[in-house]
Amino acid sequence: MQPPRGTRDFGPNEMAQRRRLEALWRDEFRRYNYREIQTPTFEEIELFLAKSGPGIRDEIYDFKDKSGRELALRPELTAPSMRFYFADLKMEPKPLRLFYFGPCYRYDRPQAGRYREFWQMGCELIGDNSPEAHAELLFLALRLFEKADLKDVKLRVGHLGFLRGWLKRLGYATSAEQSPLMRLIDKKELEKLKAALEPVARSKPDDVRNFFELFTIESFEQIKLLAGDAESQGAIAHLVRVRDVLASFGADLSKVRLDPTIARGLEYYTGLVFELDAPQLGAEKQLLGGGAYDLSAVFGQPPVDAVGFAAGFDRTLIALEKHGHPMAGSDALDVIVAPIDPAAQVAAVRAASLLRAAGRSVELEPRPVAVRKVLARATGLKARVAVFLGSKELERGVYAVKDLASGAQTEVSEAALADEIRRLVGH
Amino acid sequence: MQPPRGTRDFGPNEMAQRRRLEALWRDEFRRYNYREIQTPTFEEIELFLAKSGPGIRDEIYDFKDKSGRELALRPELTAPSMRFYFADLKMEPKPLRLFYFGPCYRYDRPQAGRYREFWQMGCELIGDNSPEAHAELLFLALRLFEKADLKDVKLRVGHLGFLRGWLKRLGYATSAEQSPLMRLIDKKELEKLKAALEPVARSKPDDVRNFFELFTIESFEQIKLLAGDAESQGAIAHLVRVRDVLASFGADLSKVRLDPTIARGLEYYTGLVFELDAPQLGAEKQLLGGGAYDLSAVFGQPPVDAVGFAAGFDRTLIALEKHGHPMAGSDALDVIVAPIDPAAQVAAVRAASLLRAAGRSVELEPRPVAVRKVLARATGLKARVAVFLGSKELERGVYAVKDLASGAQTEVSEAALADEIRRLVGH
Repeated sequence: MQPPRGTRDFGPNEMAQRRRLEALWRDEFRRYNYREIQTPTFEEIELFLAKSGPGIRDEIYDFKDKSGRELALRPELTAPSMRFYFADLKMEPKPLRLFYFGPCYRYDRPQAGRYREFWQMGCELIGDNSPEAHAELLFLALRLFEKADLKDVKLRVGHLGFLRGWLKRLGYATSAEQSPLMRLIDKKELEKLKAALEPVARSKPDDVRNFFELFTIESFEQIKLLAGDAESQGAIAHLVRVRDVLASFGADLSKVRLDPTIARGLEYYTGLVFELDAPQLGAEKQLLGGGAYDLSAVFGQPPVDAVGFAAGFDRTLIALEKHGHPMAGSDALDVIVAPIDPAAQVAAVRAASLLRAAGRSVELEPRPVAVRKVLARATGLKARVAVFLGSKELERGVYAVKDLASGAQTEVSEAALADEIRRLVGH
Repeated sequence: MQPPRGTRDFGPNEMAQRRRLEALWRDEFRRYNYREIQTPTFEEIELFLAKSGPGIRDEIYDFKDKSGRELALRPELTAPSMRFYFADLKMEPKPLRLFYFGPCYRYDRPQAGRYREFWQMGCELIGDNSPEAHAELLFLALRLFEKADLKDVKLRVGHLGFLRGWLKRLGYATSAEQSPLMRLIDKKELEKLKAALEPVARSKPDDVRNFFELFTIESFEQIKLLAGDAESQGAIAHLVRVRDVLASFGADLSKVRLDPTIARGLEYYTGLVFELDAPQLGAEKQLLGGGAYDLSAVFGQPPVDAVGFAAGFDRTLIALEKHGHPMAGSDALDVIVAPIDPAAQVAAVRAASLLRAAGRSVELEPRPVAVRKVLARATGLKARVAVFLGSKELERGVYAVKDLASGAQTEVSEAALADEIRRLVGH
């Protein structure tokens, strides 16, 4: 009777929190003119193989449908979004801003903060790779967590130009040679990286030493240390401009660090890369990741500039919980309406209908019931107000209204009922 | 580059419509004190086999995960909801009202209004099988379509007591004997049904003729014609009370029909059954279906009263479209903000930030741009207002505000900007 391993059921309280964060984030994307799209939960597996290589097969839910189609539950939403873009949206005026929200899947050992079914909200900005556009995107990334009231986050910003330049200097010229090293860099496995670079260290000890200096850089003030070939110079100019525009947006730069060692383990990134962490979360601290990329080759299309990020919805909720201020999202009930006499049943239905028309959440007791039972039910439902109606009230054309917080009870006419409830509920 | 067969991509316009209907419906469930839950997209296949029998395997997406678990993409949400109920929610005070919204999957030949990935919003009311509770549930079902402004719908209400009584009288005593007939009845395959009943018709010609009379009944006024055994009498009393309470809710009874031949092809239904159609949709006209059921045996649990329905989200949108008034859900942009001079870039960022803080959707041109280009872009984005800022405006501390509907242009100070935009956008 449990959900499949690594997946979860969400109860009313959790769903209220999740829908609240979803709404906050959706509203924030809207303010930056991102428009929502939705793609299927599964795709032809070829899409993910073409993007991430055959190794991805071990990490995803893949299956054949009854006609032999090879499908996969999506592990992420950038490849499906770009598939949709190339299929249907490429004639839209650029820049084009898209966002998405939905579940993704990975076949992986479940652990704290790491589920087999997890939700991502993210965006893609297509057709503008300027530092100004990148700065706005980074500002939006920071805003999402400000909006969620998650204060303790760090945004690390880097550029693949530095790593690529250094790896070339160390003799790794092709992307095939660079890949295994990029993976070690991405996971910050410095010991393994040292071992892998040992042969090079014998012939170029200074270069290797300087290369490892990259991992000590933390602040934008150190950016000039990265100067090297033309690619590095371009990357420095880009990041400095990004930082300046970010400042003009009013970003809190104390949350923004320079990190030239972000590799993101992915070969289609083209320049800017960034990750946002909630340091208290330990091993699963990353809440968001993204960068500038070009997936056009996957679809056999001419190059297209794109930049985007995906934010981890589940981890953000966990981080808020760990900070001791979980997302607010009450599922409390406004009103319970109860006839306490058979003669009052129709009038009770009328009161419930009228309060529902006024936007209230209302539980209507379907049959006459004792006051004591209504109050017990009201407590179980966390109801704010109880409205009773017996033959006494019916005769005088009023409803008994009990504020369940204070215990105070008054009598109210039908015409005044909705206003009285609004007053008691407070909105 | 297309989505897998039978699935769809949704662009910004469609998503705006879908999110609007979702919000309307969610709000309606909330008013009746239904609380949202969410279960995984896939379940162990055993859940659906236990509920629907081995035949369901041919109609669903089933697959093994890498550890050999047999999983299935959910074809519907009642079985998962009840699994969740028995696992975690059964100690909650009753009646318990739950609702859900999410994609479901069937492996089926795609056709108009019939997709392999489709969305359902539905609810379960656990612990109250009274006619009063059933009436409120049916009223809520009708409200969903009223809320969506879909006027031309028919709610057909029946009770399995009639069919079961008749089948017994015709000599089909067990649920195993009744099942094949129930399936023909559910699909209204009257010719096949006549053929199946041919042997009985020879010995009990009057009974079979009277049985087929059921298919001609349309109105509640004819309900007495159904009187027979005690089970039928009970069903009549139940439905008459449901109809009366429905009337007290103010339901439009011209939309409600009696239909004693609803079988829903499912063995765990216990009494009330109902279906709601949009007659114009042809073969795929059913928008909602439900009834009272007991799934406890699937989970080896003691009996639990439940009643619920699932509404077809995609078909409702199609029905609205066919009626010529598709769901409103504009993705128009409020404001485009553009610096037309390099000196004005920082002030443009400030204007965008200030309007976003006021809740506006804003596209900010990241770099200085010619007025002509801004206007072309604004048209492409369906923007309502353009805000320009050049060195001339900068000197005088104002913004040029152009109403793109009327073409009128004014100058506004930073302090007055948000109010002016609100005035032009109209909300």
